[in-house]
Amino acid sequence: MSSCFNGGINISLFGESHGRGIGVVLDNLPSGEVIDLEKIGAFMARRAPKKDGTSTMRSEKDIPEIFSGMYEGRTTGTPLAAVILNTDQHSGDYGNISHIARPAHADYTGFLRYNGANDPRGGGHFSARITAPLCFAGAVCAQILEHRGVTTGAHILSIKEISDERFDPVNVTAEQLETVKNRPFPTLSGTAEEKMREVINAARTDLNSVGGIVECAAVGFPAGIGSPMMDGLENIISRLVFAIPAVKGIEFGNGFSCADIFGSENNDEFTIKDGKIVTVTNNHGGILGGISSGMPIIFRAAFKPTPSISRPQNSVDFKDMTNRELVIKGRHDPCVVPRAVPCVEAALNIALVSAMIENPR
Amino acid sequence: MSSCFNGGINISLFGESHGRGIGVVLDNLPSGEVIDLEKIGAFMARRAPKKDGTSTMRSEKDIPEIFSGMYEGRTTGTPLAAVILNTDQHSGDYGNISHIARPAHADYTGFLRYNGANDPRGGGHFSARITAPLCFAGAVCAQILEHRGVTTGAHILSIKEISDERFDPVNVTAEQLETVKNRPFPTLSGTAEEKMREVINAARTDLNSVGGIVECAAVGFPAGIGSPMMDGLENIISRLVFAIPAVKGIEFGNGFSCADIFGSENNDEFTIKDGKIVTVTNNHGGILGGISSGMPIIFRAAFKPTPSISRPQNSVDFKDMTNRELVIKGRHDPCVVPRAVPCVEAALNIALVSAMIENPR
Amino acid sequence: MSSCFNGGINISLFGESHGRGIGVVLDNLPSGEVIDLEKIGAFMARRAPKKDGTSTMRSEKDIPEIFSGMYEGRTTGTPLAAVILNTDQHSGDYGNISHIARPAHADYTGFLRYNGANDPRGGGHFSARITAPLCFAGAVCAQILEHRGVTTGAHILSIKEISDERFDPVNVTAEQLETVKNRPFPTLSGTAEEKMREVINAARTDLNSVGGIVECAAVGFPAGIGSPMMDGLENIISRLVFAIPAVKGIEFGNGFSCADIFGSENNDEFTIKDGKIVTVTNNHGGILGGISSGMPIIFRAAFKPTPSISRPQNSVDFKDMTNRELVIKGRHDPCVVPRAVPCVEAALNIALVSAMIENPR
Amino acid sequence: MSSCFNGGINISLFGESHGRGIGVVLDNLPSGEVIDLEKIGAFMARRAPKKDGTSTMRSEKDIPEIFSGMYEGRTTGTPLAAVILNTDQHSGDYGNISHIARPAHADYTGFLRYNGANDPRGGGHFSARITAPLCFAGAVCAQILEHRGVTTGAHILSIKEISDERFDPVNVTAEQLETVKNRPFPTLSGTAEEKMREVINAARTDLNSVGGIVECAAVGFPAGIGSPMMDGLENIISRLVFAIPAVKGIEFGNGFSCADIFGSENNDEFTIKDGKIVTVTNNHGGILGGISSGMPIIFRAAFKPTPSISRPQNSVDFKDMTNRELVIKGRHDPCVVPRAVPCVEAALNIALVSAMIENPR
Repeated sequence: MSSCFNGGINISLFGESHGRGIGVVLDNLPSGEVIDLEKIGAFMARRAPKKDGTSTMRSEKDIPEIFSGMYEGRTTGTPLAAVILNTDQHSGDYGNISHIARPAHADYTGFLRYNGANDPRGGGHFSARITAPLCFAGAVCAQILEHRGVTTGAHILSIKEISDERFDPVNVTAEQLETVKNRPFPTLSGTAEEKMREVINAARTDLNSVGGIVECAAVGFPAGIGSPMMDGLENIISRLVFAIPAVKGIEFGNGFSCADIFGSENNDEFTIKDGKIVTVTNNHGGILGGISSGMPIIFRAAFKPTPSISRPQNSVDFKDMTNRELVIKGRHDPCVVPRAVPCVEAALNIALVSAMIENPR
Repeated sequence: MSSCFNGGINISLFGESHGRGIGVVLDNLPSGEVIDLEKIGAFMARRAPKKDGTSTMRSEKDIPEIFSGMYEGRTTGTPLAAVILNTDQHSGDYGNISHIARPAHADYTGFLRYNGANDPRGGGHFSARITAPLCFAGAVCAQILEHRGVTTGAHILSIKEISDERFDPVNVTAEQLETVKNRPFPTLSGTAEEKMREVINAARTDLNSVGGIVECAAVGFPAGIGSPMMDGLENIISRLVFAIPAVKGIEFGNGFSCADIFGSENNDEFTIKDGKIVTVTNNHGGILGGISSGMPIIFRAAFKPTPSISRPQNSVDFKDMTNRELVIKGRHDPCVVPRAVPCVEAALNIALVSAMIENPR
Repeated sequence: MSSCFNGGINISLFGESHGRGIGVVLDNLPSGEVIDLEKIGAFMARRAPKKDGTSTMRSEKDIPEIFSGMYEGRTTGTPLAAVILNTDQHSGDYGNISHIARPAHADYTGFLRYNGANDPRGGGHFSARITAPLCFAGAVCAQILEHRGVTTGAHILSIKEISDERFDPVNVTAEQLETVKNRPFPTLSGTAEEKMREVINAARTDLNSVGGIVECAAVGFPAGIGSPMMDGLENIISRLVFAIPAVKGIEFGNGFSCADIFGSENNDEFTIKDGKIVTVTNNHGGILGGISSGMPIIFRAAFKPTPSISRPQNSVDFKDMTNRELVIKGRHDPCVVPRAVPCVEAALNIALVSAMIENPR
Repeated sequence: MSSCFNGGINISLFGESHGRGIGVVLDNLPSGEVIDLEKIGAFMARRAPKKDGTSTMRSEKDIPEIFSGMYEGRTTGTPLAAVILNTDQHSGDYGNISHIARPAHADYTGFLRYNGANDPRGGGHFSARITAPLCFAGAVCAQILEHRGVTTGAHILSIKEISDERFDPVNVTAEQLETVKNRPFPTLSGTAEEKMREVINAARTDLNSVGGIVECAAVGFPAGIGSPMMDGLENIISRLVFAIPAVKGIEFGNGFSCADIFGSENNDEFTIKDGKIVTVTNNHGGILGGISSGMPIIFRAAFKPTPSISRPQNSVDFKDMTNRELVIKGRHDPCVVPRAVPCVEAALNIALVSAMIENPR
């Protein structure tokens, strides 16, 4: 299902890659929030294909049209709906693969799930294109967070074996987040950028693809928001992040590394700084018991390499039940990670606004 | 919030560590499922404290009493409620720490979230003890899965730097899962067990604690179950797994490692084997586009070291707003991982039954 | 909130009367259902304004455009989104009343609820125009029901003091439902129609308005669907029916009249007829304990007179906090009941499909 | 399903009439609310069987035991669970009717819904006994409302043809509500009480039963709470009220009578009184567009006569598929209405607290 109810925001995503249009309905947003459409455009531009060889050459002009929920530049509080028309569809490119399962795609599982009735063109509702309305929703929520003093941002932590620096989990600032997320290729280190671009270009030239890790953070988020057990911040953030195609893992704070150290090393001691309770270290990633601690919220999401590669692959025709060789035509990103950066932020933004609505402080 | 609505099962956990009792209500279960109470007891015994030094010496006799939803040994289909009375409470042990935040615990965040009204004794509703009713729910769901030919199981993949072997993601069998999960110390390799026990005991002796990674799998789960976007299998499994205290990360299939390899390596080619569509490798962990592929479902969850250690720690009194040294009394597991194994399975079982109910095939 | 999650269908309505457009997203519909767009058009035409003096003269060309969820004439199973553009907006007509509360409208309550940020033009999201996408959703569900042998229909039971005949609660047939609901003025009795038209026209001439009662039924709905307590059929039908503006009451079976008779009269005896269990009478309206009995489902909904009347009314300016006389300009239905008939059916259709999905038999 | 999620409170009712116990879990309550257990006892005593011949002679000692969610007399904010043990079960009385459908009961529909696996003893989960935990929940919510200046109350408006006076929809006061709801037989008029008692006793003597109407009101509820469309106050109140067995209709404000008058009569004019916006009349029952207007919230619910009567009735054995005469043994209320009064209030209380949490003002 493409909707998500956290007790706070209700988000309903819709659309198929090659249908009439895609979009989103956001219900239960706070009313009266001033929304700057240019900021939305800027956010969505970060997800748009790059002209620099790191992504597909398709020109997706994903200009969302707001159908409801905005009046005189402010949210009305009633459902906010936005629609993006599909204009550049090229469905011919996909014509010959409709029943041969593209490896690592949802062609086969989607066919089973919907008894063969789903739209197979370009992945249909499984297309990464549905992250465009997700980013729209995230861009709206970013502004609602901004009104409350919260800034979020993300960067490319790694592309294959090339790593960027990590955010400083204690001292990361709103300014740093703003700066890095708005870079054309969002890394903290210029050297990392250069090497990552090389790795991506090499993969493209080699008709291959690569994956990577996105690191995301929020600063200024108030302490005391969230809930224990199933509606904790980690629960709702991970639920939203796994909605982004190609995500295969998520970790908060020091994440999987916490398993390698002693409790005495992992426990973040509390102290009072400038009259405020903080932790000296931030292995917990700003969340304890599902609830924000006031420290920066930090998490990382792993993205697999783009499944669509131009090399011949072995697969099956799931209608004929025959083994078949598959050559995927069309244009594809050799790496989804640069464009995934705003998507991860969007998921975080939606989760944080939802939690703030549910537990206003 | 301690409840979770997936459109399938509705689960509502309740209770505080030192209150009258803890429990769970499971709504929308299928009716007529034969439930063997001894199997439930055996499942819960796996979570019970061990007498072997790897966990606390508290004797938690967590015998759940079924209040409703069962009739003549079968689920009625109406809400199944089970209650565990708290008998061994020792609240005196916790008396002096109620306003000094235990590092890596939810004392401070819970205090803020509930405006100081939550039960501070033993962590209250944040206590890991709430995983007992979670295991009850998981034990019920295990039997419902069993009736449908699905077997789940988990093992300790690592404790600090010591690693067990991984499940074979393609060939793991129901028998292997049954065997490993029922071992007193669930590892695939006997050597790993021995070394892990040493690491845990050393941590205990040293008034310290260690964490680790649990690997969990399901075999026999039919292809075509789940949904794209926010209600995919990864989404609901992760939402439930993060309800287990101390989890800081989750990854499916090859997880974070997918970021290190080429698309040509990561893509799992489809083939036909014994008249059935399978993948040759299983980097995708049995889930594509949120939907099961018919391959084993595999994921790993990272657990931080037990926050409660007996060494003095620096912290703050969040009522007085003063820096304080804290010495945690009472008995605590030096490592939660062995007891977490059935909890992770439980989360998976609940997610899988919920998905099967929602999308019956 | 304008969305509704019953564990079955998730429906999200959006739009404002004078915004860019209105629409609906239907999530979790069954896949592969053949949908005839002409039937949808015919359903929606029943809600469109009549040229016969019983409703407003505005020409609302409510042609829904399907954006997603349909492929080659069938539901894909992924979210079905439909949008209706607002073309005939006449916002000038409403210019002078934005802060004087129209009696019996939601101007004042909506202003408070959304802190003055909601769209005041034409009622904004509170406009009865939002029943157009509701009817679209109901028209889709009508076809899904039809595929399962279920027929629904409604008629005008009363307009002010003029009453139509009631459906025979035991013997009402699919044919009768089809016939009456497709009449231009849906009554069972021609005499009632004539008198009702007179009452409506007299009200219009007199710058006044009238209300009435709609009776709705379903036949062919299988026994055993629904749930006890809060997700019973009565619960979800009433929740959806009260989403239609102007509804002030709902009753099932003999409804309020059940309070006037003895148990021995009210109890519907069971008997076996043609090898099937039926009830001899149908005071229960086809629902017992929230679950369908296999007898016709029958309910009635009361509609208040159109709040917008052209007579001067006393009211207040809720910004100035002054008493003011109000004269509502623009064109308004003297009676919403004829156009409400398909809306009530739509609510029933959505509820029944949702229940069938949740408890497939 | 026995749970209900309004975005505010999550309520999960469980239990069977003759099982081990019944109860309720309330999730997402505000924290720190002082709860007086004696007031809960007093509320529940109003639902308890009367010794005056108007109800069954069974002594149901429904003393709820709170298992979690309360600490030092206040709500913790974590799930509040309460359990009532079943002690007086007399399951022998029901032994012979398990497969003969009691007319107007859910025996047959429940059997179908749960494929014969549900607990048939005493109606199982369909038993009116499940209204005891509903009343517990309502009693907790009554106190939360009281802390916010809101008072609710209900009375018997009619028993068969005998009517009580109505609440004055404009001027009803908190004092009146408190007084009437705490009367042993809650009517406004002493004469009505006397005649109603006669009607009930006559029905009992005659081995018959009668129904009636409950009128319920809230005063002090702030204006501006609720939402348009499907989560309006009417929607959530009706959803909860139809969870009470035997309810067949609900109407708000002047309800079905609104269909009989002109718009000019039905529209409630706004005016300013003591510096506050009010309506001169209150046909709208305090709710416009799903949102509270600040006027008293008023609604009525119709209850059918007790289905269980001691007279022989014709029915079928739904296992044998044979026509059978049925004589229901055991003790039964000749009229559920007096005991239903607090149940209706409970439903309202839960709905109002839920709405206040969701849209805090």
